[in-house]
Amino acid sequence: MPNTSPGYAVTVRVETPASPGATSALVAAVSGAGGSLTALDVVESHAGRLIVDVTCDAVDAAHADAVTKALREVEGVSVRKVSDRTFLMHLGGKLEVNPKVPIRHRDDLSRAYTPGVARVCRAIADNPDDVRRLTIKRNTVAVVTDGSAVLGLGDIGPAAALPVMEGKAALFKRFAGVDAWPVCLDTRDTDEIVRIVRSIATVYGGINLEDIAAPRCFEVERRLREELDIPVFHDDQHGTAIVVLAALTNALRVVGKDKTGLRVVVSGVGAAGHAIIRLLHAQGVRDIVACDRKGAVHRGRGGLDPARQWIADHTNPRGVAGTLAEALAGADVFVGVSAPNLLTGDDIATMARDAIVFALANPDPEVDPFAAREHAAVVATGRSDFPNQINNVLAFPGFFRGMLDAGAREITEEVMLAAATAIADCVAPAELDAGYIVPSVFDGDVAPAVAAAVREAAGQGA
Amino acid sequence: MPNTSPGYAVTVRVETPASPGATSALVAAVSGAGGSLTALDVVESHAGRLIVDVTCDAVDAAHADAVTKALREVEGVSVRKVSDRTFLMHLGGKLEVNPKVPIRHRDDLSRAYTPGVARVCRAIADNPDDVRRLTIKRNTVAVVTDGSAVLGLGDIGPAAALPVMEGKAALFKRFAGVDAWPVCLDTRDTDEIVRIVRSIATVYGGINLEDIAAPRCFEVERRLREELDIPVFHDDQHGTAIVVLAALTNALRVVGKDKTGLRVVVSGVGAAGHAIIRLLHAQGVRDIVACDRKGAVHRGRGGLDPARQWIADHTNPRGVAGTLAEALAGADVFVGVSAPNLLTGDDIATMARDAIVFALANPDPEVDPFAAREHAAVVATGRSDFPNQINNVLAFPGFFRGMLDAGAREITEEVMLAAATAIADCVAPAELDAGYIVPSVFDGDVAPAVAAAVREAAGQGA
Repeated sequence: MPNTSPGYAVTVRVETPASPGATSALVAAVSGAGGSLTALDVVESHAGRLIVDVTCDAVDAAHADAVTKALREVEGVSVRKVSDRTFLMHLGGKLEVNPKVPIRHRDDLSRAYTPGVARVCRAIADNPDDVRRLTIKRNTVAVVTDGSAVLGLGDIGPAAALPVMEGKAALFKRFAGVDAWPVCLDTRDTDEIVRIVRSIATVYGGINLEDIAAPRCFEVERRLREELDIPVFHDDQHGTAIVVLAALTNALRVVGKDKTGLRVVVSGVGAAGHAIIRLLHAQGVRDIVACDRKGAVHRGRGGLDPARQWIADHTNPRGVAGTLAEALAGADVFVGVSAPNLLTGDDIATMARDAIVFALANPDPEVDPFAAREHAAVVATGRSDFPNQINNVLAFPGFFRGMLDAGAREITEEVMLAAATAIADCVAPAELDAGYIVPSVFDGDVAPAVAAAVREAAGQGA
Repeated sequence: MPNTSPGYAVTVRVETPASPGATSALVAAVSGAGGSLTALDVVESHAGRLIVDVTCDAVDAAHADAVTKALREVEGVSVRKVSDRTFLMHLGGKLEVNPKVPIRHRDDLSRAYTPGVARVCRAIADNPDDVRRLTIKRNTVAVVTDGSAVLGLGDIGPAAALPVMEGKAALFKRFAGVDAWPVCLDTRDTDEIVRIVRSIATVYGGINLEDIAAPRCFEVERRLREELDIPVFHDDQHGTAIVVLAALTNALRVVGKDKTGLRVVVSGVGAAGHAIIRLLHAQGVRDIVACDRKGAVHRGRGGLDPARQWIADHTNPRGVAGTLAEALAGADVFVGVSAPNLLTGDDIATMARDAIVFALANPDPEVDPFAAREHAAVVATGRSDFPNQINNVLAFPGFFRGMLDAGAREITEEVMLAAATAIADCVAPAELDAGYIVPSVFDGDVAPAVAAAVREAAGQGA
């Protein structure tokens, strides 16, 4: 039976006779249908009848309907209303903009607005760098998408992508105090995207590209980095790579292996895969075999796009060709950022001893993590219901916090490596375990530690 | 002596001997230099010495320096630090972005972000209109500028304009609960501006154009209105026109005149002037003489741009030509949205009996308001230190509140007239006076009244 999830929580308001067994009948109906009851609230009671809010998690939307149906079928019960907690939470969106300064009376207005504000404008006009000190540019990040590669939904466009961007912005504030704002672009044209972001960049201290499909995302990021004097960071690439590197660093500590001579196989050569490979390469890992749908990427393959060509030129020194499963034999590390159900436990069994498996395809990993755990020493996924969740939330808030505080203008490999090290070091040696190689996303020490490391590394580069 | 302003407030931290007359010597120094003391705080006291924060308003930046110098010259006093309250308030900007939903633990994350958010994305992908219900589009307005016509500073560019846009956004939230966000564009090209705003419009329920120079502002607004399905409102045009119409409505009530047969002279044919003329025309006022730098706009003039041509074709039925002063003779109403010191009290004296004068050039009006008041029955300016301040803050927050709540897609003259009427009616008949023709910007009834009137007018149009 698949797990229920709070992402599919419903509150069903029912009316029931006020008999001794009334509420337990409701509880039984929910559990009989496989729902997980999380709350039971009697909201009204009169004239021998009760109004009860029954809140529970379901497996998916269809299952939520089934649980509602089970409640409806309890003797004497009528369903008044079904409220979906996720949808309720989204009504009117998840962000608000608030003033940081008081506007209580005329004096406040004279300072926050006319005439006082004119002096601040003139100061910036006289000294343009002051925009970083005297405006929100000090603390803002634009979360930019074209809606072409959203979660597991694919190309759904800018409007449908907005709830994800709002969520991203909420996480930026919640974990690192960064003011992030959604920029959902109604265009797929790379030139257009670059021109628009360049034109709006004045207000922002950093750009977070999100959910833009490969290979366009590489060119968008490259060109914006050339043209802008603020950091540009495609989180699907580098956030993932930073957390993967942090997790790998700790996993190697757990199994007692070194990066030297490590054999790594990466499945998936999109945004995340490419960035992971580059960051590992920057750490001196050379024996990386990248696999896409056609199999291993090697020098002998023709017709490679520029991103794959770089991989062919800089990795796979043994010239491994063939399928993913073939490439996996004898490997120390598997990193999957591709698609579900590509491998079985038997494939994992062909890896080297004390293998490390990061199966990060979302929502279903490349290999069943339980099957993998039978053969590998350390297993991680992107799922929240399994240990070692590789979650970008560990990286991007603290990363931008540090970049904004340093006033940094560009992103270097040193800065990303510093972030990865900071995340890894949040797990103390005494805590390190095959089931605990990355900190929890709710560990309040992570974002500040990442910010401090990034600030220092960026400061040194400046 | 010009007035001091809180927009030029400084806090001077001084060290002084702890003698009986120490603080009164500081007070005397400030008033002797013409400053307005607002606070005196002894922050430290030890070993016969006091550290005192002296806060006062000055006339301008040079005067603030003069006051500081006067303090420095008091016997035994040394100045430790000068803090400018306006600049202090602007450090790091005036806005922040906050989540509206809790993110305390895994369950919250599952609803606000993955996996729950995916369902909301899919719902919008299936039914695109739901973006207005399930995202921040429900409540957001983009404050869009290219920095080409900012306050009295002119073309200072997008970075220097940002403090004004932040202030505008702060006012949107403070007065009407609207989430507004600055969009400062690094381009002057009309096509570019239209393309960019069109591409980013997904996130917003309305567009507020701000400080974009005429005549480009007319084309930008016109084209965006054609292309977008959300309201587009250039506040410098229509916000001003709405408040002018409200003030005029009440001023006519004060002097007992009707709009029929009214003779109006408008000085200035930029954004505000053009919009005021169009709104008056929509209210049936026809005898309007518009004057620009060359004098009255009339059918006989050639080489008029499209905006002026419309004015020539639809106003000035008596074919008045000549200078502003000549056109003013016998007029009932003067509205100035142009430049300072164009008229004297003698010019106002040539107007009709019970004349109404709105001299709105900022910061110095077309005519000295005191001189005008000797000859006109009702005088208004844009200044906060004179009665009857014509301030757009009376219009734009409630206007957009109403448009967002109605889910309106376009702006009609009916909606703008409804807003003007609502503002005027906030001044009860018993309160109406030559010195009180518009409500105070801090009158908490105004924005809700405007919102309700706009919502109803927009709903009827829908």
